[in-house]
Amino acid sequence: MFIDRLIRQIQEKKSNVVVGLDPRLEMIPKFIREKHYGLYGKNLRAAAEALWEFNREIIESVYDIVPAVKPQIAFYEQYGLEGLEAYQRTCNLAKEKGLLVIGDIKRGDIGTTSKAYADAHLGMVQVEDEKLEAFSVDAVTVNPYLGDDCLKEFIGDIQTYQKGMFVLVKTSNPTSGQLQDLESGGMKIYEIVAQMVNRWSKETLGEYGYASVGAVVAATYPEQARTLRMLMPASYFLVPGYGAQGGTAKDILDCFDEKGLGAIINSSRDILYAYRKNPKEYGEEDFGKAARAETSRMREEINDALDENGKKYW
Amino acid sequence: MFIDRLIRQIQEKKSNVVVGLDPRLEMIPKFIREKHYGLYGKNLRAAAEALWEFNREIIESVYDIVPAVKPQIAFYEQYGLEGLEAYQRTCNLAKEKGLLVIGDIKRGDIGTTSKAYADAHLGMVQVEDEKLEAFSVDAVTVNPYLGDDCLKEFIGDIQTYQKGMFVLVKTSNPTSGQLQDLESGGMKIYEIVAQMVNRWSKETLGEYGYASVGAVVAATYPEQARTLRMLMPASYFLVPGYGAQGGTAKDILDCFDEKGLGAIINSSRDILYAYRKNPKEYGEEDFGKAARAETSRMREEINDALDENGKKYW
Repeated sequence: MFIDRLIRQIQEKKSNVVVGLDPRLEMIPKFIREKHYGLYGKNLRAAAEALWEFNREIIESVYDIVPAVKPQIAFYEQYGLEGLEAYQRTCNLAKEKGLLVIGDIKRGDIGTTSKAYADAHLGMVQVEDEKLEAFSVDAVTVNPYLGDDCLKEFIGDIQTYQKGMFVLVKTSNPTSGQLQDLESGGMKIYEIVAQMVNRWSKETLGEYGYASVGAVVAATYPEQARTLRMLMPASYFLVPGYGAQGGTAKDILDCFDEKGLGAIINSSRDILYAYRKNPKEYGEEDFGKAARAETSRMREEINDALDENGKKYW
Repeated sequence: MFIDRLIRQIQEKKSNVVVGLDPRLEMIPKFIREKHYGLYGKNLRAAAEALWEFNREIIESVYDIVPAVKPQIAFYEQYGLEGLEAYQRTCNLAKEKGLLVIGDIKRGDIGTTSKAYADAHLGMVQVEDEKLEAFSVDAVTVNPYLGDDCLKEFIGDIQTYQKGMFVLVKTSNPTSGQLQDLESGGMKIYEIVAQMVNRWSKETLGEYGYASVGAVVAATYPEQARTLRMLMPASYFLVPGYGAQGGTAKDILDCFDEKGLGAIINSSRDILYAYRKNPKEYGEEDFGKAARAETSRMREEINDALDENGKKYW
């Protein structure tokens, strides 16, 4: 079951940190970019190969201190088929390294179409009597705007293939409140979505009392985490917005339960481009080392904050 | 401007019908499937080639009687990179044939990520000083759950590249009401989304008074179309749910304005698999002919209903 594998990874690595693999071409060390422009020209192939080389080093640098990585598919999709091939290779390498891979795809559609997305990213697709994998990762993010029809199809593949999902409940962007914070019948929309998530979570409970149906809950709105923790007692939170987007270790404490389980905290930019923040200490070629140092620092920062609040799990 | 190109196509072809290119492998004529299994084996490549051969014939059969096609990307994504290559080829052929292509991608994310999706599907992506196309189509569908941050990024590319989008306002699936119909401050959520769409539409007005920012409004809930038509006077409606999902010609009348503009009606299954409905008249190899006949029938059905209600535009 996805959630049990995740919790075991967290425990083993003493880490609640997820590295967001959102590579931006212009932020990748120049020597990598130049190498691939030299080989392929300035085209989609070169961009994709640069992304892949960058990711490879990042994964090699952090795989033993984080339970999971979260590639954001949009950053690959923008480079077309070549970019999506880099996404696929990235996911495969991370899996080989024992990491769980959370595909940040934010898909969601009507029933039969959601089934196609679920098969594409979690399950397998049928070609006559053959069952084949397309982009198979361990868990995905899902958009709830179409309601249970949509979520149900992902649940099907979660149960069949022992996978997971994180439903967008409260996102980290400035205008997330525009729809998500509206009140209806005394509840916020994001709380109503939380109730939907909670209902589905009951069908995928694992041995630690958590479910393979989790929720995206932003670190940028800490006051909401407390309510959401209560509304979704069995759902793991995937928490974006730490670091670059403004969330701090204090802000994310309420995403965890009393024992110190319940949340994984994503950071992308601060980790991937750590080498640029400290050019005296790190040259471009040290980007992996810098990423590891920042991941490590963030891991300790979160663990210390949990410890101080009596929430250290291990 | 996208919307002007769309309206000119509608006028020229006297047609409000959009063919949804949602190919399901198991529904594709056996002779096509067998051919590609023979060539490639039962794998993703064979599936993708079968989709592409099927689509090619459909496009050749209907391109002169519809203004646009709407490929649903999930049905390609499930066959991995090979499937997405078939999506790309399908979009390119449709464009060559003078059709507008609406990529049904239902993407949506935080700002910078939405920018990557917009560049992937509407605009161009930058590789140093080169600007390159990834999946470039004429318009896309967008999910509004993350609010204006997300929509804004698509608007940027719509303005720069003369493209369009249709924001999910009210979807056609049974549980669409779960969030979309909730009331907040006396308005339904889908009406609040409609107001957001209306605000953005004003920044992309074309010469017919319509905007390149449209809305997805399901045919399965006709009573809501009237309200939405008023809330979004400048937005074209992309109407799913006709035919197989239950919507009839009467149901979609209120999506149109008094002059007979304002909506395009999508049908997928009824058109693509028309050959299966009438096996006495059509053999498997006649699937293109059957698709054309059904498209034609639907075009007349809608035109007649509009005519009877004094809404025929041409």
